[in-house]
Amino acid sequence: MILPHLTYLASICANKGVTEAILSPGSRCAPVSLAFIRHPDIHCRIIPDERSAAFIAMGMAQQKNKPVVLICTSGSAALNYGPAIAEAYYQQIPLLVLTADRPAEWIEQWDGQTIRQENIYGHHIKNSYTFPDEVSHPDKLWHAKRIIKEALIQSEDFPMGPVHINIPLREPFYPQANEQYPFDLTDLEPDLDLHLPTSTFREESVVQLKTEIKKYQKVLIIPGQQRPDSNIKHLLKSIAENHQAVVITDAISNMSQEATIKHHDLLLINQTEKMVPELIISFGKSIVSKALKLFLRQQKIAHWHIQQNGQVPDTYQNLNQIIRLKPKTFLDFFRKEANKLETNFENEWLKKNATVKTKLPSLLEHAPFGELNALEKILKALPAYAKLHIANSMAVRNVNFLGLGGDDLEIICNRGTSGIDGSNSTAVGCTFTTKEPVVLVTGDMAFFYDRNAFWHQYNLPNLRIILFNNQGGGIFRMIDGPSKLPELDEYFETKQKLNGKFLAEEFNFHYREVTGMGDLLSELRTFFDKSLNPKLLEIKCDSETNTNTLKMIKETLKV
Amino acid sequence: MILPHLTYLASICANKGVTEAILSPGSRCAPVSLAFIRHPDIHCRIIPDERSAAFIAMGMAQQKNKPVVLICTSGSAALNYGPAIAEAYYQQIPLLVLTADRPAEWIEQWDGQTIRQENIYGHHIKNSYTFPDEVSHPDKLWHAKRIIKEALIQSEDFPMGPVHINIPLREPFYPQANEQYPFDLTDLEPDLDLHLPTSTFREESVVQLKTEIKKYQKVLIIPGQQRPDSNIKHLLKSIAENHQAVVITDAISNMSQEATIKHHDLLLINQTEKMVPELIISFGKSIVSKALKLFLRQQKIAHWHIQQNGQVPDTYQNLNQIIRLKPKTFLDFFRKEANKLETNFENEWLKKNATVKTKLPSLLEHAPFGELNALEKILKALPAYAKLHIANSMAVRNVNFLGLGGDDLEIICNRGTSGIDGSNSTAVGCTFTTKEPVVLVTGDMAFFYDRNAFWHQYNLPNLRIILFNNQGGGIFRMIDGPSKLPELDEYFETKQKLNGKFLAEEFNFHYREVTGMGDLLSELRTFFDKSLNPKLLEIKCDSETNTNTLKMIKETLKV
Repeated sequence: MILPHLTYLASICANKGVTEAILSPGSRCAPVSLAFIRHPDIHCRIIPDERSAAFIAMGMAQQKNKPVVLICTSGSAALNYGPAIAEAYYQQIPLLVLTADRPAEWIEQWDGQTIRQENIYGHHIKNSYTFPDEVSHPDKLWHAKRIIKEALIQSEDFPMGPVHINIPLREPFYPQANEQYPFDLTDLEPDLDLHLPTSTFREESVVQLKTEIKKYQKVLIIPGQQRPDSNIKHLLKSIAENHQAVVITDAISNMSQEATIKHHDLLLINQTEKMVPELIISFGKSIVSKALKLFLRQQKIAHWHIQQNGQVPDTYQNLNQIIRLKPKTFLDFFRKEANKLETNFENEWLKKNATVKTKLPSLLEHAPFGELNALEKILKALPAYAKLHIANSMAVRNVNFLGLGGDDLEIICNRGTSGIDGSNSTAVGCTFTTKEPVVLVTGDMAFFYDRNAFWHQYNLPNLRIILFNNQGGGIFRMIDGPSKLPELDEYFETKQKLNGKFLAEEFNFHYREVTGMGDLLSELRTFFDKSLNPKLLEIKCDSETNTNTLKMIKETLKV
Repeated sequence: MILPHLTYLASICANKGVTEAILSPGSRCAPVSLAFIRHPDIHCRIIPDERSAAFIAMGMAQQKNKPVVLICTSGSAALNYGPAIAEAYYQQIPLLVLTADRPAEWIEQWDGQTIRQENIYGHHIKNSYTFPDEVSHPDKLWHAKRIIKEALIQSEDFPMGPVHINIPLREPFYPQANEQYPFDLTDLEPDLDLHLPTSTFREESVVQLKTEIKKYQKVLIIPGQQRPDSNIKHLLKSIAENHQAVVITDAISNMSQEATIKHHDLLLINQTEKMVPELIISFGKSIVSKALKLFLRQQKIAHWHIQQNGQVPDTYQNLNQIIRLKPKTFLDFFRKEANKLETNFENEWLKKNATVKTKLPSLLEHAPFGELNALEKILKALPAYAKLHIANSMAVRNVNFLGLGGDDLEIICNRGTSGIDGSNSTAVGCTFTTKEPVVLVTGDMAFFYDRNAFWHQYNLPNLRIILFNNQGGGIFRMIDGPSKLPELDEYFETKQKLNGKFLAEEFNFHYREVTGMGDLLSELRTFFDKSLNPKLLEIKCDSETNTNTLKMIKETLKV
């Protein structure tokens, strides 16, 4: 039989502009999946491993800025969504997570695939609902519709994020062979729409902040992780060029440009008193640079964070003003009201940035072949409008060390929880939303961890993977503590033997391995060209070389 | 610096007989890992994928009947343990789960790998503790020791299960290069020991149950999932041979023997009034057979469940007596007090079981090559004392259909949550505890889902994998609902293209593929022989053939 609340579930989602669903196979979830599969306006894909499925959905929702539906069966399937849901929660990416469940009477009776699914995502979900288990009473049907509408609104309201509906289902729940879903529902009204305010300053705040801002002549603006936004980027350019603030752009801020500081990770080797700001202004989410965070946490300064809504962290241990506006509104105000910078302060930052920028290319050129100089060549060869996914651990740190990014490139990295567990899948999700090249730069640990990202029947012709394989967790060689311990090799770096060749054969990827700069450059000439199959370029490198190169660069740059 | 509470953590665990730890690499967890790595009495292994790591630890703890320690770093790592922890919770397997965390001040400040780890396992953990973040005050050190002792006791007290200690760590936390852990602690006392009672009947219960038991002449004893126990097995034999009860043994009960009913899944095709019992007696955990559950749920009968402690489910919807004793104590009582069975009732079960047993071999022999007749040959070829791991979905159902099991074989299956997500890893964990052959029988979905079980540096010479590859989720062809829907192929069976060849090459497994009975029999002649590397035997089969064979068997057996 067709369960009416499931028809509404798919219909209301479609009405609200949801167009994509990622399903994992199961029996209990079959009626939920079928409602979405049969809905004419929703595109469904099947991903067997729920851990990857959820990261794939997240990678899609990130690009679409609309909730993507996730559907899994009862039992531990729902727990396999856990890592991606936490990542989506901290990265503020909308997901509508639908977990099929047994009805209440069969929980705790030792039936198969039955666990405690209510509130299963704990504190890493915007909200968690339980569907009525049947809808014979009109109030129950109303309740189901109410839950769907509210869940969708919640996932899209700022800050966006994942919401969960647990769906208990009692047999019979399979449609008959010829039964149709009545998607031409006429009783969907009243709809529930979300109208967001255009916030602007309250008069008192204007007076206060106008006075405040005049006090400062040493201002750093630090945008955190966000998607590209040309308006904001343009405003930052104009502020920097107008000498009102030094703008520091981490790779994941997607705000890097000529006028901004991109080499903070390296220039802070030579930090001076002159560089200490009086005021930090931040918006967006986290930054990667540990050097910058540590530098700013040592100071006694002011820090204003611009964020419309939601909990505000104190990343630099100095937060003193929370400003509930959109970044653009605030930056417009700032451009009008802020002083010119003190020249010494500005020059110190710009000069140091310029020094790194000038010296870095030849340092990289003379270093032995390794992650850093390979990465530089790769990022320079990227096609315009590429989406660059970077895995956690060393890959994202290296991109930030080099101060890369900018132009039309979008840089994406799972910095919500900073795990290595879903980088492949997030990139795969991205390829489902675009025909532009999607480039994943990853290390071997992240890559093999999430190999089930590729275990499905969809082709990924625009996916390009650069795998830096140093056969282990090279990051531990970089951390002071473990690098000095006798257990480094066996227990921290955890040498692993795999390389990408078998995986490429298994999943029908185009594959090349390179071990030197000449080969790399020759490969890069055609690597980003269109192809029918995904391509995997494996760069064999050595974590000791990489550690030494970085050490050499730091020592040479140190005044 | 060496953190003293971490020294106690490893020391108290070792003192309590913990000998095994499974670590996943990370920076925040390094000091916890080091304490275990350096402890002379604890053997550590490194598994990079936390999802597999936790199932591996569970597979070990299941054999050792002692807590195995799990250590992971902060952030989403802990969430990847989720599926195995739920499985261990429902299977009552002891684990000590140690998650490193940042100290409270850095939670919610957008620092990397920082999520909300307190109580992260929700309702699927016996208890969840938070360690003090430093131990400068003696009460804090006492508190840490108290937590360790209590957690260990909790994990081992009946019903056993996973317990969690979240461990916030503030820098500096790495030992200096030459710093030693002072494991020769003299202030570990007072120790905390657990003394379990030997329960026996209260006098009132004896009187009541003696009277009760005399009322029944149609009794089914149904042991649920448990590890082999020769005392109980012997008692069941004697009860069955003494005509006091019909004993029905699901494969996962590990109680199958000549005197018990093993063909209930098939014989219930011809269920009759005569087979309806007056009383069910159960102990242990769940059973697999849906046919048996449905048959017994239709009846209005009595059901006594024997369980020392903890929540008791009502699997057959008839539960009316909970008896807080060990099964052996109760079965001794039963053997002394119970009536002889009504002959008609007993004969009906035994006769039907005998019929299936007689007819099945020739039915299998004449069926085309497929999962069922291949499985029969394989299980007959198993070496004595093998540990047989069976994956969920079709594999465990097929073993139960055939009524296999018995002798010295231990049959293991993740029936706590009945997920496909950790079967490989559970088997790998088992190989770490024994030199006897560990045989995994699995389908392709379960096998490829958990392939990271093999991603580590440990050799598994005694592992033998039988992979039934029908290139998809054949189970959906067996379920009435989906099998009739046009979406069956694409959305339910989810055809997948992988086969085991690449995986075998990648992980250096001995590999053979067979497609017919002749090849299979010839392979089986040497498959279980000792070898240096694990062996993978892939059986290519077709889910339609399997469905048809089962249908044919059921139709032929139907009177």
